[in-house]
Amino acid sequence: MKRDLAGLMSERDIDVAIVEGSDGTHGANPAFAYLVNGEHLVGTVILQRGKAAQLLYRSMERDAAAATGLELINLDRWPLHEILEEYPNPLDARVELYRRIFEDLKIKGKVAFYGTGSIGGYHAFLQALKTKVPGIEIVGEYDRDIFAVARETKDAHELESLRVAGQRTCEVVEAVIKFLQAHSVKNETLIQEDGKPLTIADVKEFTRLELARWGLSSAEDFIFAIGRDAGVPHSTGNSKDPLQLGKTIVFDIFPKEPGGYFHDLTRTFCLGYAPKEVERIFRDVMECFETVVGQFKAGELTQSYQHVACEFFEKRGHSTLKSNPTSQEGYVHSLGHGVGLEVHEQPYFPTFGKWETKLKEGMVFTVEPGLYYPERGFGVRIEDTYYCDESGEFHSLTPFPKDLVIEL
Amino acid sequence: MKRDLAGLMSERDIDVAIVEGSDGTHGANPAFAYLVNGEHLVGTVILQRGKAAQLLYRSMERDAAAATGLELINLDRWPLHEILEEYPNPLDARVELYRRIFEDLKIKGKVAFYGTGSIGGYHAFLQALKTKVPGIEIVGEYDRDIFAVARETKDAHELESLRVAGQRTCEVVEAVIKFLQAHSVKNETLIQEDGKPLTIADVKEFTRLELARWGLSSAEDFIFAIGRDAGVPHSTGNSKDPLQLGKTIVFDIFPKEPGGYFHDLTRTFCLGYAPKEVERIFRDVMECFETVVGQFKAGELTQSYQHVACEFFEKRGHSTLKSNPTSQEGYVHSLGHGVGLEVHEQPYFPTFGKWETKLKEGMVFTVEPGLYYPERGFGVRIEDTYYCDESGEFHSLTPFPKDLVIEL
Repeated sequence: MKRDLAGLMSERDIDVAIVEGSDGTHGANPAFAYLVNGEHLVGTVILQRGKAAQLLYRSMERDAAAATGLELINLDRWPLHEILEEYPNPLDARVELYRRIFEDLKIKGKVAFYGTGSIGGYHAFLQALKTKVPGIEIVGEYDRDIFAVARETKDAHELESLRVAGQRTCEVVEAVIKFLQAHSVKNETLIQEDGKPLTIADVKEFTRLELARWGLSSAEDFIFAIGRDAGVPHSTGNSKDPLQLGKTIVFDIFPKEPGGYFHDLTRTFCLGYAPKEVERIFRDVMECFETVVGQFKAGELTQSYQHVACEFFEKRGHSTLKSNPTSQEGYVHSLGHGVGLEVHEQPYFPTFGKWETKLKEGMVFTVEPGLYYPERGFGVRIEDTYYCDESGEFHSLTPFPKDLVIEL
Repeated sequence: MKRDLAGLMSERDIDVAIVEGSDGTHGANPAFAYLVNGEHLVGTVILQRGKAAQLLYRSMERDAAAATGLELINLDRWPLHEILEEYPNPLDARVELYRRIFEDLKIKGKVAFYGTGSIGGYHAFLQALKTKVPGIEIVGEYDRDIFAVARETKDAHELESLRVAGQRTCEVVEAVIKFLQAHSVKNETLIQEDGKPLTIADVKEFTRLELARWGLSSAEDFIFAIGRDAGVPHSTGNSKDPLQLGKTIVFDIFPKEPGGYFHDLTRTFCLGYAPKEVERIFRDVMECFETVVGQFKAGELTQSYQHVACEFFEKRGHSTLKSNPTSQEGYVHSLGHGVGLEVHEQPYFPTFGKWETKLKEGMVFTVEPGLYYPERGFGVRIEDTYYCDESGEFHSLTPFPKDLVIEL
């Protein structure tokens, strides 16, 4: 949670955390969005141990800056036009700007940079900055940085956003299913009023409108894949495919609500009826899901649940990452991932490596076992977003049935 | 254009360009999107001089990988589970993975990194990589990197996407204006059927649905600001504000089409009638717009047009950035920016610094003069997206009228 940031900085001996809010990165800049409460602006947040967070902002975004509630400093305090006179090269000017900011705000010690930006551009900038502000240690944290760790557990306000995102996502999925049911069938295929087959493109178009109706956004494509494509975990589906009966459809949708919090839901269903072999596979996935969820306990290693899932599927005769790390059949991904300002964030549930993350109060994460048989023309994945409450109880944030067959 | 990349690498002595496609950055990772043609996947593109581009991808995204048309290498070629046995620390494992990739793909010389990612995480990674692969020079480019420069001019295929984005954006704006006109007026305010005032929140909700209807997306908020807020360039508008007659409304919308190309349009209008002082300011902005556009010529410095705009406005008695760099009244921003896979990209039209960018065939950029008087309760900005064709002629990609008054 946000209140953990000060402790994390102290533990890691970080004196100053600088979070860059680069242009164009809003939806992909979770550390910055976290601090500015999702406001839309370009700027920089400076966290110094023992001081209030400061936001460096531009005049033309002064309203958004004020709405963040942070202590504000207008970037005009260090007039760029003056710096550019002396330093016409853009990199030199940027370095000089930060040298002035550091001096002015008395920034010293170990200074760590965060946020999302141009990998090469920031690497060049930080290298140059090091040579110009000697005596200050400039670093980057890899992997579980202080923001990733703080964001791994959610406070009540975040949970409320995540809950709303879940409810609205379920409304969208329900509307899509009703939309499918409203079509007639001809030759084992859903058809439109003009007699043409209903395609995945049509379903996606309807879904996007429904997302907008519920105030959700989904900048990236989502997954609505049928048959063989349902057997490739991240295949988004072939837009021209007709909606045929008796084939598995994987519908995996991960929209975000206006505050920037995501939800992640997957349902797998067959229209009209399900073939016997799909029924069996679906049962294996559902039972794996229930087995894993039934064992959730705060304080246990997240990784242990991926191993539970692998062992469960292996006993049922499926290949898994654990027995065959490069398999493209069976259970071929990890059990889940955290959900928050990113659709994939901490905690993770990896198969390999030495992970020390444990389930903890405040965590919000997906549970998504799946089995994939693309050569046999099907795949099944079931995914809810879960939450661990203050007393260590686990609850689904995805109130939607998990039926295999959609009656027509 | 994409075909310029080889020449840019050669000019800058870059042997290998590595473009990272990090998780969650899709819409904010233009260099990666440029190379994978907008496909949705996590991976890395490697450009070696004189060789075909290679995409390192994950099995579960094999369909998206295949759709890019690039030469494919499955990341399973360097099994991460084996690396993690030897290097349990995630940073060490990542470095070892790249060391193996470099060795295997014979990557050497000057290697430049691109793409969008965690600023601190990539800085830590690249620093560590340098110590582990001696003999290879690892660099980042600041500012006008090879992708920014290549992307500054558009090919026929990109132009088509940009044109479609423009047409659809105009359709949305037209629908919004008709929506406003469909309301009745009471006490100088638009009212809904239930007699309550129509608010900015209502207009934004309608606009988002209309965007979805036209297949456009707008992950970030757009600007629909009235009165004083119209006088603050990036104020997105107060959602509770009622739609009142005779006040300036700045409507600035910048959606993208499914391929990832943006359009950027601003119109300023008053409902019913416009006050005299707004009429005068509007005329100044329109005449500045026409003056600047009338002088466009391939080969001229982009910066010179910002100076034309500043001089024009100063002659009309307005403060500008040039005369008063920190002013919050008058003309307080630059003339425009490139538009493509980012809503703001090269070329820029800055007031200060020594910019050498010239207008050139294939460039797509906005022209958006504006005047802001928040204390007097209004602001005006007019923006079209322009294109410079093969013969150096300039055309608007924003076929929409620029009327000040919306008749009710």
